[in-house]
Amino acid sequence: MSKARIETLSDGIFAIAVTLLVVTISLPGVGEYTNLAHQLLKRWPSFAAYVITFAVIGVMWLNHHSIFAHFEDVVDRTFFYLNMLLMMTIAFLPYPTGVFGEALGNGEGTRTAAVFYSATMTVNAVAWSALWLYASVGRRLLVPAFPESERRLSTTLFVSGPGAYAVSVLVAVVNAYACLAFHALLAVYYAFDPLSRRAAHGAQPPEG
Amino acid sequence: MSKARIETLSDGIFAIAVTLLVVTISLPGVGEYTNLAHQLLKRWPSFAAYVITFAVIGVMWLNHHSIFAHFEDVVDRTFFYLNMLLMMTIAFLPYPTGVFGEALGNGEGTRTAAVFYSATMTVNAVAWSALWLYASVGRRLLVPAFPESERRLSTTLFVSGPGAYAVSVLVAVVNAYACLAFHALLAVYYAFDPLSRRAAHGAQPPEG
Amino acid sequence: MSKARIETLSDGIFAIAVTLLVVTISLPGVGEYTNLAHQLLKRWPSFAAYVITFAVIGVMWLNHHSIFAHFEDVVDRTFFYLNMLLMMTIAFLPYPTGVFGEALGNGEGTRTAAVFYSATMTVNAVAWSALWLYASVGRRLLVPAFPESERRLSTTLFVSGPGAYAVSVLVAVVNAYACLAFHALLAVYYAFDPLSRRAAHGAQPPEG
Amino acid sequence: MSKARIETLSDGIFAIAVTLLVVTISLPGVGEYTNLAHQLLKRWPSFAAYVITFAVIGVMWLNHHSIFAHFEDVVDRTFFYLNMLLMMTIAFLPYPTGVFGEALGNGEGTRTAAVFYSATMTVNAVAWSALWLYASVGRRLLVPAFPESERRLSTTLFVSGPGAYAVSVLVAVVNAYACLAFHALLAVYYAFDPLSRRAAHGAQPPEG
Repeated sequence: MSKARIETLSDGIFAIAVTLLVVTISLPGVGEYTNLAHQLLKRWPSFAAYVITFAVIGVMWLNHHSIFAHFEDVVDRTFFYLNMLLMMTIAFLPYPTGVFGEALGNGEGTRTAAVFYSATMTVNAVAWSALWLYASVGRRLLVPAFPESERRLSTTLFVSGPGAYAVSVLVAVVNAYACLAFHALLAVYYAFDPLSRRAAHGAQPPEG
Repeated sequence: MSKARIETLSDGIFAIAVTLLVVTISLPGVGEYTNLAHQLLKRWPSFAAYVITFAVIGVMWLNHHSIFAHFEDVVDRTFFYLNMLLMMTIAFLPYPTGVFGEALGNGEGTRTAAVFYSATMTVNAVAWSALWLYASVGRRLLVPAFPESERRLSTTLFVSGPGAYAVSVLVAVVNAYACLAFHALLAVYYAFDPLSRRAAHGAQPPEG
Repeated sequence: MSKARIETLSDGIFAIAVTLLVVTISLPGVGEYTNLAHQLLKRWPSFAAYVITFAVIGVMWLNHHSIFAHFEDVVDRTFFYLNMLLMMTIAFLPYPTGVFGEALGNGEGTRTAAVFYSATMTVNAVAWSALWLYASVGRRLLVPAFPESERRLSTTLFVSGPGAYAVSVLVAVVNAYACLAFHALLAVYYAFDPLSRRAAHGAQPPEG
Repeated sequence: MSKARIETLSDGIFAIAVTLLVVTISLPGVGEYTNLAHQLLKRWPSFAAYVITFAVIGVMWLNHHSIFAHFEDVVDRTFFYLNMLLMMTIAFLPYPTGVFGEALGNGEGTRTAAVFYSATMTVNAVAWSALWLYASVGRRLLVPAFPESERRLSTTLFVSGPGAYAVSVLVAVVNAYACLAFHALLAVYYAFDPLSRRAAHGAQPPEG
């Protein structure tokens, strides 16, 4: 099975999931246009959740791009199914994002919504780990040029992902706004952390 | 007409259909955030229907990918229309999936929703058969390298598909939850069954 | 400006427009699951409108594919804008399709909905004409291999399109169901008519 | 990081954002089909906002295409994040477009909706400036063939963009309809203005 066509399908799902996020922000109801400014300001958590989840999916796309560069051109069915499992969790993100923003905007069900959002992210992190471990254990689908030291580093990163997101579930139980901020921080961390940048250097040109 | 461009269009429709599934899960209403945990738990059939239909479409994508590898690079208009018929049934899936999940979640109309979902899947299986038969009878669009024995095997698989899904309609009449489980089993069967794997070997490398 | 990238953008819009159609079929309301079979049967015009518009967009995609094969690889800005105008009318189709199906299902506003749907199709046909005329008059963007006789034939087809769809507006005024059937007939005509098939032969292999 | 794959992702987001616009036009409610003609006419601002935003995104796509032609084939992470920021503002456009059309159609909250729409466009223009400045200052990611004079011209254009859109916010405060017209004019200006056409000539064939 060709890796390239799986990448194309995945890119399509990334692009659609990220663009569908906006649909989950509730439009003001018929009677709510008389105080529209208030209605829009009230939705700031939905806008914040939109920005954060958009960034998270963007970082995931980058991550997907990076690790696929290290895989063989021909992959097997199990790899395809693990990638579809990952895509299933990413395509699902608009739902908990919409619920999270709406709950915070209305000030009701905030803790449940934060736990739901964080739990979805945790499942997503598990899917990432599964995909990476399947492809990298015994170097099953890794290209020979990918250094062994980078493999260990990447494995540590992917395996610790579910742990980091499990912590976000705990933060969600304490405070929903802190949980939202925690997810923003995780996105920034995964966007810039030096470990994953080093890991990415295996098959990519140096970056500024 | 170029097969490659039809594949690209089909891949786009697959990616969008699978990502649109999440839109059919009803968001909690304005007054339902006070007992959000209950509202989300109540929707478990919608989440289950999401997972199952996502998996079904994923397996279909794989199937599409496999059989297109055996077709000539240039195809005709009738083939294009049969493929569009197939895409029409796939792009429709978010609707019966949404209805099925909602009916089970509310405990009303469950039998009708299960029959509706199963009937859509049956029509989809008929479209698969039609596409395969058109392309393979008399080896109209098959590449010479595709072995005759595999052709017969694949034909048996595709022709039996509507039968299997017709059974799902019967299961739906008996019990909607059993029907949901039956569809999950069918997805697992089509994902792993040895016959289709053997059939796929005609144009693909051996898999682990 | 590269024709290939405009084709890719257009293909994306085609794929999304066709897949979004399903979103315009109204899901049964909360209290309507008790008589779900009735609710689904009542929506048969929405399902019919879905099938017809899906087929129409499929035929348009084919048409787009065919004529683009006759254009030069490098096109200009005006061509891009005319193509975007065409895409604007195609991406809009889910809206009148949804209104048409809903009106027929409820038995209210049927004539208005049929006129609205037909008028949108007429505007779409005008956009097709404009694109073709811009590219073909004086052979501005046509490849030299495209025969002059085919150019005249295609021009006749494209220029008569708005006329055919204007007739559909008249049919809509008389009877909304007849209008729906008329659009189905137009789709079948454009899918199979010998003139457009002959016109397509300029740059394509013979078809069965 | 490969520029080509970022372009593909961006093209997907452009295509989806532009096609999702139609979803933000509210469908007539259940009881509103008895006077459907009135309901549709009442929505003319939503249709106008659809057309204008569609055109704006089309021009942006063209702009994106033009400037990417001048960048090196390999780009860095910061460039990717700035491009995702830009995509985030584009993917968000269906929301303010829907609010703007609905507000004008109902005659309530028009000023707020116009300011909201214009502010979103201003943020979008800032994202364009940031992307261009990052890539062009010190010619960081520009190909050597791109002339220095064109670089200065393009910089002037991109830096003045937020100013032009800030003016649209002021127009929005005065009159919402004037604001809608102003955005239409800006789209026409950016589609045809001679400066950006000259800037585009750096890496493109002359146009008619």
